[in-house]
Amino acid sequence: MSVVQMVKIVGLGAVALTLSVKWLGWLLCRLWPRKISRGPLKEVFFFPTEVACTERLFTPDSPFPCPCPLPHNVNTSFTRLLGHILSASSSLDLCVFAFTNLDLSRAVLALHTRGIPIRILTDMDYTLITGSQIGAIRRAGICVRCDSGAVHMHHKFAVVDSRRLITGSLNWTLTAIQSNKENILVTEEPDLVLPFITEFQRLWDVNDPARRNLPSIAEKAASLVLYRD
Amino acid sequence: MSVVQMVKIVGLGAVALTLSVKWLGWLLCRLWPRKISRGPLKEVFFFPTEVACTERLFTPDSPFPCPCPLPHNVNTSFTRLLGHILSASSSLDLCVFAFTNLDLSRAVLALHTRGIPIRILTDMDYTLITGSQIGAIRRAGICVRCDSGAVHMHHKFAVVDSRRLITGSLNWTLTAIQSNKENILVTEEPDLVLPFITEFQRLWDVNDPARRNLPSIAEKAASLVLYRD
Repeated sequence: MSVVQMVKIVGLGAVALTLSVKWLGWLLCRLWPRKISRGPLKEVFFFPTEVACTERLFTPDSPFPCPCPLPHNVNTSFTRLLGHILSASSSLDLCVFAFTNLDLSRAVLALHTRGIPIRILTDMDYTLITGSQIGAIRRAGICVRCDSGAVHMHHKFAVVDSRRLITGSLNWTLTAIQSNKENILVTEEPDLVLPFITEFQRLWDVNDPARRNLPSIAEKAASLVLYRD
Repeated sequence: MSVVQMVKIVGLGAVALTLSVKWLGWLLCRLWPRKISRGPLKEVFFFPTEVACTERLFTPDSPFPCPCPLPHNVNTSFTRLLGHILSASSSLDLCVFAFTNLDLSRAVLALHTRGIPIRILTDMDYTLITGSQIGAIRRAGICVRCDSGAVHMHHKFAVVDSRRLITGSLNWTLTAIQSNKENILVTEEPDLVLPFITEFQRLWDVNDPARRNLPSIAEKAASLVLYRD
């Protein structure tokens, strides 16, 4: 076989391969549009949500059905939110203004029991509200830092496994979930997740209690200048 | 030229074309990564933001520089947020819990003056807070509907031109912008924008004052059943 013939055969083979891959992609997108064509995870839930039993999320392997009177095996905005939190396998970073919801507190404690590293950043004033779960979470040994500025640490976001962002208007309270009109957006789009990871780390460092007791470099520099004067 | 030769030439041409397009795409992605490779708009801003003059956003064609003492031509989280609002060319749907910020109110009124249809949905209780801009906006002739439920309409999102979603933890207040720790996420990703458009329309319809005075179909059915009994 001559070199020219070889080039022609390779060329035609490349065309056939390219077209096959394109057509296969098109076919897969038609068959499973949500899984194939949409890229990273993107979900939106709205609240208030209907009240449903969440026991199966905490004890999925239990052979006994939950005897509570609430509807079972119902997929609500809240069960989806809980599912995303409980899906954490390597880390949970939570930055939330108000945290009183018992189911979400149970989810955080369950992750802690599984040995998953958890960091919680919250507003100092709102740790004192009735029903705040921050005390129980701290007593369990989870690392919590409080923003004690004169203004509010008003974020309501979580980053699961440094990859999945959960953000929106919803505080982690029963009123927010069962009564208010609220939204939650879940995404694994890196362009949206990475800024939140960076901001969490920045706020975490700024609110390090060890750091607060030490004078900042700027303060040290100012004192040196004063000394020289 | 024989048919076989023709097939071979077309085949090689197709290979060359495919490779050229791929290489051109790769080159463009390297040259303008944010514009070419990232798909729909995705931005995240954090607050508090530094205070800067916003006059150039409202009067971009003015030949006179603003004489105010604030920093000029500074790109802050707030100027970017204002820019997105002022970019509206066909519609603005706003669903916000608290609205007291004068610059954002000015932006909404400027869009109204340009003839852009605006719909605002807010929490009834929070229209009564000090500095609420809802009264001024209503007086200008912009359509506002209030959610008067016993709980809060706690959303903080806007949809610009039925295409761009602005959502996050940030209420449209001066404290939120200049003092609190807050976040705003801006995206044109259809999977994230469309649910917010649908939810806005649902809440808009539910809070139609004309509808509230009429008995619902369920109430009518109930009264018919009572009449039959």
